[in-house]
Amino acid sequence: MSYPLGQNRYGKTGVRLATVARDGDQHRFTDLDLEVLLEGDFDAAHTQGDNAAVLPTDTMRGTCTALARDGIDHVAVYLQQVVDRLLVASPAVTRIRIRAIAHPWERIEVDGVPHSHGFRPAAGGSSVTTLTQERGMPPTVTGGIQGLRLLKTTGSAFSGYPTDAYTTLPETRDRIMATTVEARWGTIEADLDHTALAATVPTTFSAAFARHDASESLQHTLHTMGSAVLDAHPEVTWIRFRMPNEHHNLADLSPYGLDNPNMVYVVAGDPSGLIEGVVTREGVEPPPAW
Amino acid sequence: MSYPLGQNRYGKTGVRLATVARDGDQHRFTDLDLEVLLEGDFDAAHTQGDNAAVLPTDTMRGTCTALARDGIDHVAVYLQQVVDRLLVASPAVTRIRIRAIAHPWERIEVDGVPHSHGFRPAAGGSSVTTLTQERGMPPTVTGGIQGLRLLKTTGSAFSGYPTDAYTTLPETRDRIMATTVEARWGTIEADLDHTALAATVPTTFSAAFARHDASESLQHTLHTMGSAVLDAHPEVTWIRFRMPNEHHNLADLSPYGLDNPNMVYVVAGDPSGLIEGVVTREGVEPPPAW
Amino acid sequence: MSYPLGQNRYGKTGVRLATVARDGDQHRFTDLDLEVLLEGDFDAAHTQGDNAAVLPTDTMRGTCTALARDGIDHVAVYLQQVVDRLLVASPAVTRIRIRAIAHPWERIEVDGVPHSHGFRPAAGGSSVTTLTQERGMPPTVTGGIQGLRLLKTTGSAFSGYPTDAYTTLPETRDRIMATTVEARWGTIEADLDHTALAATVPTTFSAAFARHDASESLQHTLHTMGSAVLDAHPEVTWIRFRMPNEHHNLADLSPYGLDNPNMVYVVAGDPSGLIEGVVTREGVEPPPAW
Amino acid sequence: MSYPLGQNRYGKTGVRLATVARDGDQHRFTDLDLEVLLEGDFDAAHTQGDNAAVLPTDTMRGTCTALARDGIDHVAVYLQQVVDRLLVASPAVTRIRIRAIAHPWERIEVDGVPHSHGFRPAAGGSSVTTLTQERGMPPTVTGGIQGLRLLKTTGSAFSGYPTDAYTTLPETRDRIMATTVEARWGTIEADLDHTALAATVPTTFSAAFARHDASESLQHTLHTMGSAVLDAHPEVTWIRFRMPNEHHNLADLSPYGLDNPNMVYVVAGDPSGLIEGVVTREGVEPPPAW
Repeated sequence: MSYPLGQNRYGKTGVRLATVARDGDQHRFTDLDLEVLLEGDFDAAHTQGDNAAVLPTDTMRGTCTALARDGIDHVAVYLQQVVDRLLVASPAVTRIRIRAIAHPWERIEVDGVPHSHGFRPAAGGSSVTTLTQERGMPPTVTGGIQGLRLLKTTGSAFSGYPTDAYTTLPETRDRIMATTVEARWGTIEADLDHTALAATVPTTFSAAFARHDASESLQHTLHTMGSAVLDAHPEVTWIRFRMPNEHHNLADLSPYGLDNPNMVYVVAGDPSGLIEGVVTREGVEPPPAW
Repeated sequence: MSYPLGQNRYGKTGVRLATVARDGDQHRFTDLDLEVLLEGDFDAAHTQGDNAAVLPTDTMRGTCTALARDGIDHVAVYLQQVVDRLLVASPAVTRIRIRAIAHPWERIEVDGVPHSHGFRPAAGGSSVTTLTQERGMPPTVTGGIQGLRLLKTTGSAFSGYPTDAYTTLPETRDRIMATTVEARWGTIEADLDHTALAATVPTTFSAAFARHDASESLQHTLHTMGSAVLDAHPEVTWIRFRMPNEHHNLADLSPYGLDNPNMVYVVAGDPSGLIEGVVTREGVEPPPAW
Repeated sequence: MSYPLGQNRYGKTGVRLATVARDGDQHRFTDLDLEVLLEGDFDAAHTQGDNAAVLPTDTMRGTCTALARDGIDHVAVYLQQVVDRLLVASPAVTRIRIRAIAHPWERIEVDGVPHSHGFRPAAGGSSVTTLTQERGMPPTVTGGIQGLRLLKTTGSAFSGYPTDAYTTLPETRDRIMATTVEARWGTIEADLDHTALAATVPTTFSAAFARHDASESLQHTLHTMGSAVLDAHPEVTWIRFRMPNEHHNLADLSPYGLDNPNMVYVVAGDPSGLIEGVVTREGVEPPPAW
Repeated sequence: MSYPLGQNRYGKTGVRLATVARDGDQHRFTDLDLEVLLEGDFDAAHTQGDNAAVLPTDTMRGTCTALARDGIDHVAVYLQQVVDRLLVASPAVTRIRIRAIAHPWERIEVDGVPHSHGFRPAAGGSSVTTLTQERGMPPTVTGGIQGLRLLKTTGSAFSGYPTDAYTTLPETRDRIMATTVEARWGTIEADLDHTALAATVPTTFSAAFARHDASESLQHTLHTMGSAVLDAHPEVTWIRFRMPNEHHNLADLSPYGLDNPNMVYVVAGDPSGLIEGVVTREGVEPPPAW
């Protein structure tokens, strides 16, 4: 028996493209990981095996590749070009979401001078740009970052929490706080310089993380980081964080007859805490999901 | 300046617990990876650093650990016990989602006989049970599986699709189809034997995958797999699949002066296709997200 | 200034090939991950940039691909064909090591019957076959396996060890023992049925692992497993194991007022123990390295 | 039947320790991943289950943890302290190898000023220090690095290689060259400032990689990198590299009617090339293995 098809989408993930641009002999290197997902009327493909409306995912890859030939100076502009093309190529499509993870590279230093065409990965996480468009509507661009680790060796406390029979965690007024930030942010309009924002927003909240020495919890710091972004960047209307609490436990040296005045820590793997939250301007309604 | 806190949640991930149960000298081994996420009124923690309402994530871990002492015969029952306890422990909580990934183990064979207490990981993916509960409402249990790879060496075609200037993919009436299934399913009531369903639903759709030799696309097979589940399991009301299309490309042997009658394939990594869809009974509204 | 080149080798890794063979409508699926490494006189490439002797690594990949066209019934035979060809293609080569990791697949069951062309990954680790050949010498084939997890819920002790000021581990006469076996084994001659051995040797040592209820340590069990292999397989002359001790720590439930009679365990990630050892027949000299 | 035990060793891996040191309010953060392996007379443990000589791997972990209490200003000095202790704690030991991977962190910039106690991971790979000691002999310290990616967008060629029936790779005089360097180096004496060398050697060979625009192959660049190190660092006697050739393939845009003047590249995953080689001073005999 056949059953109705509900919500569905399809596309291509892991499209790995790099481009080289040249300003004289100064090369610029762009390194993208792309994901394209289409929604629309694809019922016939599912229920009848009729592919007449199914733009192949390989064509999505080909479109990304061919359009990169014009250069990728701004990721959001390039994503828009791909989306414009796919809306033409696939009339069945009603909605497209395309996401680019940009792996950052910096110039190798040679005798103290940044090299013209030698690179190594830069610190600080990979920027994530998402462009979503319903056919006939303006696009939405969401900025973001992933893989940005932050750690502070003091200025973090956790106490005053409720306890019960299953609580063994000791209160502390001084601990290591560490996380790997994943963030997304919305802006007031789509035609901003999203490339510039992608560089400055993480700088803003990283500084806020470091400076927030009154931290009572990772939640508390999350809200401080978000508030700092909204203070410093008037174009940003909301920012969402997903931040694991990567525990560094004070090592118990008492069995060895030693004290441990916040000097030696065990870097725990699993389990970890997980804190998610969005900080918004008054009256703004951030989108519900990641 | 302080800004409003929007949607937020927090909890513990990667709680790795194993239990041993004994039927005489026949041991049963359960191996869980747990994630607990709480929603509720946690504004004061974020905006004022007030932890009075913040049940520590370490207490969530402790609760999972302590309640495992009563044994885990059915994962869904155990998850309910944890949720019941957390609703009491944290009055600020309005909604809890707890998820268990159960890594499967099978008995080592010794001289053809399954051993009483020696185990190895079983094939076929890890079952995923999610229990969600709003305070004061009945819980919802969602079954699922992740990491279940399936492959067929024939009985899969892809042709009849639209082409444009960026299409290079050749049509084929015989290819390898491979995927790694992630699935979730809903049921008519919460007090079913979810453990039994977790074992039989993947068997049903794996068989449908193998048998579907008229496959025109992975979408087509997805719908066939979902329909087979709804046919065979009257308790299941919807099933959602996320299925990458893991390409095995026919190797081009022509440069070597050789033909390739569907014998040699290059196992591609990235990029891959991605197909997501939900198959439902008439009139059922599956939840929107993963 | 230029300096001498010492020990060096080069080659190709991650060559992912799959083949389909057909016995009537019963398909057989082979899924290999290949690595080829060449040694020889490649000084001019390093010191002068002269590639006249450097067979491209892409040609190694092409050779593996083209020779797969004849089918891969026995991995060791196929590896020999590749090596024979490469020795001809590259006169500068003096020594080749080629290694195949074979990912195991089993037939999907449909109504209790194994399907003719639908597959899923099988349990039990991936077999590793290594063929090494010096030019003008007979080849050496080494069998092996990786990724084979084993666990027993009782029949394992660890006590009677030396203690000092840094020892906190309590002795135990009953614990969970878990490991992921990596093994290599040598044989009396090169033209054995290595495919059959690759299937039966792991069965033998897995059974020995389960049955060894007098285990005083993972070292003790390692030696028992190796001895079982040498007992059961007269063709095998030595077997080397690398076995992490994957700790499952008895959960401390005493803070919750509960006992824990070997029922609840915390699955530890890092750190883990690591035990390596080789068990040999009298007078045999196993090769020194992995 | 019992069989002889051949070469064997055991120890602890994945010991994750962090330390905080304070110069006034300027904190220094050290983040180590430690592995300890012991060799000695452990036959009785293997063959008889007698643990009288088996220092528990948990005690090795405890020793690493306790000795970190004195601070870790220089990793090589700390490793020596651990080894000295373990040689006393375990009379059966004849040889110890201990290895520390140091994950690099840099200070977060706040308003352009490096923060006193806020950190993020630094670019440039993790340094690897290995100390090996036979009882009664002086120790050997080997420096190293892993995970250091390097890429250049021009100045790399590959041509003039032999071809045969399985060669399809086109010659090129201008390609992207990318690798992830793993290196080890030996020095003239053990009591150098290994911490300083760990910082400067990678700087030297990274610059050589960037500057080597006459590169005819990755082998050619490897030798140039090694020569640069031996030129710049008189203390270094040999340096060994393991460098995958991480292919960035020029995208074929001709099906789309476009040229591609070294602008768009496909970032390939598997397969990759692999180049290993050691560059030495005249008369020096580097150790054979990794």
